[in-house]
Amino acid sequence: MTVRSRIAYDFLTIVFQKQPRARPGRLLFNPHKRRHSMDLSALFNPRTVAVVGASDDSTRMGGGMLLRFMLDHGFAGTIIPVNPKRETVQGLKAYPSLEAVPGPIDLAVFAIPAALIVKSLEAIPRGHVKMGTILTSGFAETGEEGGHLQDRLVAIARAKDIRLIGPNSLGVVNIANGLIANMAQFFDKETLESGPIALISQSGAFGSSLIADADLHGVHFSTFVSSGNEADLEFSDFARAALDDPAIDVVCGYLETIRNGAGFIELAQRALEVKKPVVVLKVGSSAVGAAAARSHTGALVGSDAVANSVFDSFNVIRARDSLELLEVIKVFSRTPTARGTRLGILSHSGGAGVMAADAAIAQGITVPPLPEALHKRLTEMLPAYAVPGNPLDMTGGVSLRGELMAECMRAMLESDAFDAALLCVNLIWRAGDTLVEELTKIAAEVDKPFAVSWVAPKADTYEKLKAAPFPVMNDPARAAHALALKLKFDDRCRTAAVSVQPKRPVDVEAPFDLGRVESQAEALAAYGIRVPKQTLATDRINAVEFLKNLGGTVALKIASPDIAHRTEIGGVVTGVDTEAALNEAYDRILANAKRHHPDARIDGVLVQEMIVGGTEALIGMKRDASFGPMIAVGAGGTLVELLGDVRMAPAPLSAAGADALIERTLLRTLLAGYRGGPVLDRAALADLIVRASWLAADHPNLAEFDLNPVIVLPEGRGAVAVDFKFAAA
Amino acid sequence: MTVRSRIAYDFLTIVFQKQPRARPGRLLFNPHKRRHSMDLSALFNPRTVAVVGASDDSTRMGGGMLLRFMLDHGFAGTIIPVNPKRETVQGLKAYPSLEAVPGPIDLAVFAIPAALIVKSLEAIPRGHVKMGTILTSGFAETGEEGGHLQDRLVAIARAKDIRLIGPNSLGVVNIANGLIANMAQFFDKETLESGPIALISQSGAFGSSLIADADLHGVHFSTFVSSGNEADLEFSDFARAALDDPAIDVVCGYLETIRNGAGFIELAQRALEVKKPVVVLKVGSSAVGAAAARSHTGALVGSDAVANSVFDSFNVIRARDSLELLEVIKVFSRTPTARGTRLGILSHSGGAGVMAADAAIAQGITVPPLPEALHKRLTEMLPAYAVPGNPLDMTGGVSLRGELMAECMRAMLESDAFDAALLCVNLIWRAGDTLVEELTKIAAEVDKPFAVSWVAPKADTYEKLKAAPFPVMNDPARAAHALALKLKFDDRCRTAAVSVQPKRPVDVEAPFDLGRVESQAEALAAYGIRVPKQTLATDRINAVEFLKNLGGTVALKIASPDIAHRTEIGGVVTGVDTEAALNEAYDRILANAKRHHPDARIDGVLVQEMIVGGTEALIGMKRDASFGPMIAVGAGGTLVELLGDVRMAPAPLSAAGADALIERTLLRTLLAGYRGGPVLDRAALADLIVRASWLAADHPNLAEFDLNPVIVLPEGRGAVAVDFKFAAA
Repeated sequence: MTVRSRIAYDFLTIVFQKQPRARPGRLLFNPHKRRHSMDLSALFNPRTVAVVGASDDSTRMGGGMLLRFMLDHGFAGTIIPVNPKRETVQGLKAYPSLEAVPGPIDLAVFAIPAALIVKSLEAIPRGHVKMGTILTSGFAETGEEGGHLQDRLVAIARAKDIRLIGPNSLGVVNIANGLIANMAQFFDKETLESGPIALISQSGAFGSSLIADADLHGVHFSTFVSSGNEADLEFSDFARAALDDPAIDVVCGYLETIRNGAGFIELAQRALEVKKPVVVLKVGSSAVGAAAARSHTGALVGSDAVANSVFDSFNVIRARDSLELLEVIKVFSRTPTARGTRLGILSHSGGAGVMAADAAIAQGITVPPLPEALHKRLTEMLPAYAVPGNPLDMTGGVSLRGELMAECMRAMLESDAFDAALLCVNLIWRAGDTLVEELTKIAAEVDKPFAVSWVAPKADTYEKLKAAPFPVMNDPARAAHALALKLKFDDRCRTAAVSVQPKRPVDVEAPFDLGRVESQAEALAAYGIRVPKQTLATDRINAVEFLKNLGGTVALKIASPDIAHRTEIGGVVTGVDTEAALNEAYDRILANAKRHHPDARIDGVLVQEMIVGGTEALIGMKRDASFGPMIAVGAGGTLVELLGDVRMAPAPLSAAGADALIERTLLRTLLAGYRGGPVLDRAALADLIVRASWLAADHPNLAEFDLNPVIVLPEGRGAVAVDFKFAAA
Repeated sequence: MTVRSRIAYDFLTIVFQKQPRARPGRLLFNPHKRRHSMDLSALFNPRTVAVVGASDDSTRMGGGMLLRFMLDHGFAGTIIPVNPKRETVQGLKAYPSLEAVPGPIDLAVFAIPAALIVKSLEAIPRGHVKMGTILTSGFAETGEEGGHLQDRLVAIARAKDIRLIGPNSLGVVNIANGLIANMAQFFDKETLESGPIALISQSGAFGSSLIADADLHGVHFSTFVSSGNEADLEFSDFARAALDDPAIDVVCGYLETIRNGAGFIELAQRALEVKKPVVVLKVGSSAVGAAAARSHTGALVGSDAVANSVFDSFNVIRARDSLELLEVIKVFSRTPTARGTRLGILSHSGGAGVMAADAAIAQGITVPPLPEALHKRLTEMLPAYAVPGNPLDMTGGVSLRGELMAECMRAMLESDAFDAALLCVNLIWRAGDTLVEELTKIAAEVDKPFAVSWVAPKADTYEKLKAAPFPVMNDPARAAHALALKLKFDDRCRTAAVSVQPKRPVDVEAPFDLGRVESQAEALAAYGIRVPKQTLATDRINAVEFLKNLGGTVALKIASPDIAHRTEIGGVVTGVDTEAALNEAYDRILANAKRHHPDARIDGVLVQEMIVGGTEALIGMKRDASFGPMIAVGAGGTLVELLGDVRMAPAPLSAAGADALIERTLLRTLLAGYRGGPVLDRAALADLIVRASWLAADHPNLAEFDLNPVIVLPEGRGAVAVDFKFAAA
């Protein structure tokens, strides 16, 4: 066991000068919780859509093409072209202006120059238009001037009670009702299939090409929002509405920045509650990437590490690339909820099963052995050479027998030992169609998730697999990885309830003024965060009493405003744990002080609790411009510096949330009886983290703090913040 | 600076008892270097191929089908069916047995039951058949009995001077000359395209489906070996032959185990020399996966971590899944050698460029800013809104202008500031064909690598892209990742020459008998590995002389066979660095010893050098059954245990190889003036690692050793192995 001792806060460097304030820009951090999603029905299910700038040229990008898409795909509501130069556009009666349109308009799509949009909005009465999608670009994404223009647009929209989508948006799509208010080339298609998936994309080009690529893979979206510059409505507004749509099972996002961190957190919390996945592709993980994203979105870009921590905390799935995104969507939209994380793997080429097991286990999924009865059953079913196990190598002997492969998978899925299954096949050209039929039956009959890895199927089988009611990937490792993400997500949804709504652990009087070290210590005490005890003893009796009450080890220091270098003159004694030693030390310190500084004012002797034993942790907080206060947890001492072994989550935290942070750092090992030492008080550390997180949440003027080290004592003996620093915003 | 002191090897626990010896099984570690690859021309370019078990039924898997494939694809040599029951098979004259065939046979393919193969081989004269491919299964992969049968097969083949492929192989393919001696379904195709790629696969099913999948992506192989159970010839034999084939640019492997580690290392070294990539998909990274691989290959499976270290040491690329493998192949087979790692990225949708930059930077590739002249040039070329940078967002305005996109890329590639470029496009349906044409010209004219990410192209453009002379992926991150692996590989090939051939740093007399601690110390000294100095002083003059010569700090200890607890009786004094202190300590120790143990025999006082300052490292060695001695390097002290921050490489090592290990551990930070401490002697540590690696290489009976801690002193002052343990095999 390592023995450490630290002396507390009278040595502190106080860092509470004014810090340069992070420019909030267009980031909209809002600490107040919204309970309900915004009503965006006028956007996704409008009764009337006005297309401002509609023309007869239906091939040119803009109002003309968009109008044609709406007509081609049979939009269920009323379409109103607005064009001052024509009586009709593409066969529809046209109106010269928005205000000329009788009755209120749910959605107006603007495909006209920026200056004209402002004029057009100025002319309409308040309440005449509910939603406005601005396709026009040349706003904030082009620089300062465009930014001013955008601000004006927002101001006037606000005055007219219009919510804006864009500018610099390709538009909005709801395939379910034929609302193709979007000018992406992909929608220039005869028929559009719809699926239970929504995509909110900050890049119209990337979003629409993703939809096009997904379509080739048999994955279909119903909702697509190209959110553009997000001058008003932003990612989490759209995503939240999609999440609350019963027709949507999976919400996907392409993100360059998260403008509203609080909104994003609410979205993610809501997703956990309703058990629907939010899957994001976020760019800007490198410094170069982040700088580039900043320059081309015209938005401040938050720290990628902070965003990652939020994803991690709330079970948001971050895909590394668009293929992984598609595979994850496939699995989530084509499998039922898993009841556990035990995976059975089958293959007819052993290596594929091994590859799948490797990939699943890398994601924390278990691949347990076969139970005895199932082992027996499979031995009977399979050819002589097959030696049943998990992964189950059915051997090449089954490769012409589609029914047998499916039967084995059904046996795995029906076993209580497994929560999900993965079948890996290669080619299987002859038995392909039979296998697809059998698997389709299993998908209908068995209420457990399964996925299939099928490498190089025949072309016609491939077409069937695209539309199959189960997910098919073309590589065992990739299939296992995507299925594993689903099993983990379902597992987290089952167990996450506690972490979703953190409870305040303590009632505090009011926000503290954290500018002085005394009030900082007072605040820590009020939140129930233990710091070392101390007393200013003016005689030996005081000092002895303190030691007796403490029942531990103390340090003694001369207390004098006139003595700067206490250690050098013998004014400090540490490691005192008996009355005799204390008396001796008390006298010695005073004598030394008098000998070296005969004229100094002596206030007495400071007697401080020494924290001995345990290990060091670091609890920090840094306020993020987008996500608000982020709590950081890591192993303390030199390890922090050397390894950056720190995990973060947004405050406030529940005990489970705090414990999850501990679990993902080296503290997990250090607290569990490391190198033969005692098991340390992990619960007390988690509790301290929770309290610190509430302190952070309650004090919006606090920019950051560090509790470092926090000494975690042996089990049952608590955790103590031995040193702390606070910095104001 | 941390100050540490350790006392050396008289406190050592000697671990040199007999260790349970790793069962070598079919692993063939061979410490003797081969200089040339085996001549496998009789396998890949046979003049005559005999098909034993050829039948007229050309649809059944086995000799009949294989014979048809050979005929269909126009094998250039002579095909001889062997079938005792027929005069002709599939229109060719048949022979009743191998020995009945006149003249020597380069390659015999066996598609008959196991027992008949043995008989067939017994009957032929030595030298009649050069190579034998065994398609038959039921050998070692099925258990012990099959293993015995396989051993017999090998023994008789050896007696007849026949090299074996398989058993349990699908066969061998060389598309270049129509040699389709393989029964995988994929070859049942009208035409087979050939490309500069070889695949050696331990799974026939997985290998052939990979080839089928690659074919769909426009990637074509020429050489394919399904190596089966590898009873005789194994992975590195085939891969080495492929590497030496001038028609092959990329050698791929699917591996479940590496049977011949030494052969693999030679292969990898050779690949570095000839600058061709070896790309492997290796399964068994998880414990469950490794166990499953073991059970179904019938082979011992080495440690995945060791294999990974070897890949890492020799620039072998390990793909995570078959898709990554295909993408890496595409890039390697369709780009010239890069002269550096500076990447220029272009896109017409900013986010794609950012995503690509993130992925490239994650692989250590640099994405530097545009030089001024290029910035100016691009500003002139591009639409008004585009703000040139790297990544370069050409903006959506260029998306109908294929020439302009290509022109921008050419400008990037022609700049001295970039070694490679990546163009990211989405859809580009209208401008697609123009863009492909322009890029094709650039590929012909510019001698730098470039890749393209193209999401959801039109169907006919997609067909053109498959056959393009440049690599195309369908995701920016994936494209950047694959291109980055190529740039890293080329970079390593340029700089790796030094690490390929380690030079012996010291001549040693003979292998040491490492069973006693004295001879271990002697061996360390002989290899030039510094250990703390010590002397047994019998008077104060001896002791003082030692201190003066040392010029450092020493510890003194009573030397007596009768005194066990030296510290307790005041028999040890540390931190002595002056003559006066030494004299005082010397006398005090002797006095204490005499007082507590008046009857003890006193041999004198042990005076030992104390190593003060610096940081701790760990140098270990463990002999791997397949790869031989593996040197492990990591930060010492508690960090090793906590973090497992250890990197390995096979011994012997060059100084560059040793330094590369240091670079990839926390030692990199700890040695570079950590926390304001002095810069430490990294060169001395690398030198010590090299010497230790030669000690390991020279002593095949040494199973493992630990030099822990090795104290690395400030720059110029060296590194000292303060403690060591050796264990015999």
